[in-house]
Amino acid sequence: MVRLLVVYDVSDNGKRSRLAKELKRFGLSRIQRSAFAGEVDQQRFKDLCRACSTLVDEDTDVVHVIQLGLRDWERRVVIGVEGGGEDDRGFVV
Amino acid sequence: MVRLLVVYDVSDNGKRSRLAKELKRFGLSRIQRSAFAGEVDQQRFKDLCRACSTLVDEDTDVVHVIQLGLRDWERRVVIGVEGGGEDDRGFVV
Repeated sequence: MVRLLVVYDVSDNGKRSRLAKELKRFGLSRIQRSAFAGEVDQQRFKDLCRACSTLVDEDTDVVHVIQLGLRDWERRVVIGVEGGGEDDRGFVV
Repeated sequence: MVRLLVVYDVSDNGKRSRLAKELKRFGLSRIQRSAFAGEVDQQRFKDLCRACSTLVDEDTDVVHVIQLGLRDWERRVVIGVEGGGEDDRGFVV
């Protein structure tokens, strides 16, 4: 399994909403409004990167998909409330 | 040195702007509108976390400070244009 952090900056509301839904579908959990974390297997890691490429506008948006070890994840510092608000309500996808 | 990724979700424009300026002052580089990366020494890592706590509203905002190894950083997948727009122009800090 691959532990992932996905952080995105997508300006279009609809695309951002679709990306968030897709990341949930891959089993990731929202840790901030525009950041998800979780584990996927190697094949689904590739599928996830491909899905991100398809969903966002690569001229204006950016998505970082970062693999990180369990130790690095566990020692993260969280200031404030992890989870973040949903920003993808109210959009038809 | 500690390699860091700092990702934040701060609703207040002024606070978000101040946080971005503070992260730059610590020598980090913007990789997205609300994400910075870079290296700091151990003492400044603590100072940086403390600065984040001071600058944000812990009831509504969230900041993740994640340590990660060089290998994990170098193998990151970037979809789109790394760097991100400045969203902290026009605010007096």
